[in-house]
Amino acid sequence: MGYRENPRPGGRSARVQAAVHQSVRDMLSTMDRADVTIPLIAQRANVTPSTIYRRWGDLQELLADVAASRLQPDGAPPKIGSARDDLEAWVEQYADEMASGVGREMIRDVLSAADATNAERCSGYTQHQLCVLIARAKEYGEAFPTLVELMDHVISPIMYRVLFDQAPGTDYVRELIARAMPRDTSRT
Amino acid sequence: MGYRENPRPGGRSARVQAAVHQSVRDMLSTMDRADVTIPLIAQRANVTPSTIYRRWGDLQELLADVAASRLQPDGAPPKIGSARDDLEAWVEQYADEMASGVGREMIRDVLSAADATNAERCSGYTQHQLCVLIARAKEYGEAFPTLVELMDHVISPIMYRVLFDQAPGTDYVRELIARAMPRDTSRT
Repeated sequence: MGYRENPRPGGRSARVQAAVHQSVRDMLSTMDRADVTIPLIAQRANVTPSTIYRRWGDLQELLADVAASRLQPDGAPPKIGSARDDLEAWVEQYADEMASGVGREMIRDVLSAADATNAERCSGYTQHQLCVLIARAKEYGEAFPTLVELMDHVISPIMYRVLFDQAPGTDYVRELIARAMPRDTSRT
Repeated sequence: MGYRENPRPGGRSARVQAAVHQSVRDMLSTMDRADVTIPLIAQRANVTPSTIYRRWGDLQELLADVAASRLQPDGAPPKIGSARDDLEAWVEQYADEMASGVGREMIRDVLSAADATNAERCSGYTQHQLCVLIARAKEYGEAFPTLVELMDHVISPIMYRVLFDQAPGTDYVRELIARAMPRDTSRT
């Protein structure tokens, strides 16, 4: 799909990517986003503008790439207790992050790009975290929703509210999870 | 929320809005969107650029306003048979429209704006259509999901897939509806 990430670590391509991403993050934290341009990013990252155009195509694709990279989780969901406890804690944190000003801006950047690659990448990060929790549930012998159930009936309603409606609250997140649980364990 | 729609019909404000919207639609259908600018839109609509800046703020807000207006439904969902039949037909059409190239572009325009007003407006249109179907179900004496259930467990998963994943197919849409139906009627 023309996606050019994962350059050889330590190589020139990886160094360029790191410098450009860092410049974008620095500029977005200090400047109005409407004033951020590829020539300014290039100057700050000490590369030529044509290097950026060649690699990312346009500003929107670069912003989407930076935003998707920032949405990549730092590690596995914390272990708290049962897999369901871990799920509740992780989804609550996910909902808070996405509904925050910074979170909304990153999602907007990801979705504004014409190329859907970075949007799919973000969904992939979320699915990966959920798979870790599903594996824990299996290990602990807990009944647990499938990945599709979690994506459709927990993650999707949260993201819809973040994008089109009001921020999802903690009670709402817990109700979604309770509803997604397999029937025999959902009414505790 | 600073939302400036519904000007007095036939008044100067309504005429300006209609002319500007029409110009944007014409330009988007013939030009690359990156080449659409406020001065060009103003020229075509025969208004001054400052009229557009004063009313919409910036290009992104104007594009979001035009896209939200285009997403406004033409009429109530068609009557086919039972309320559930009507729901299936309407949601299938909704999923097709949103997943189409034009649909995705309109959603992207709506979500790219910093102001969430147009995103809420789109969600409002969807909720209004679902309320019509809920009222029909009540009239016909059919068991039917609530508005929140339909938004969370039918519309949200479709929109998530449109934005972050693959286009939702007809079978997928029907399964979501079957799952959202009240327990006693869901397994027919």
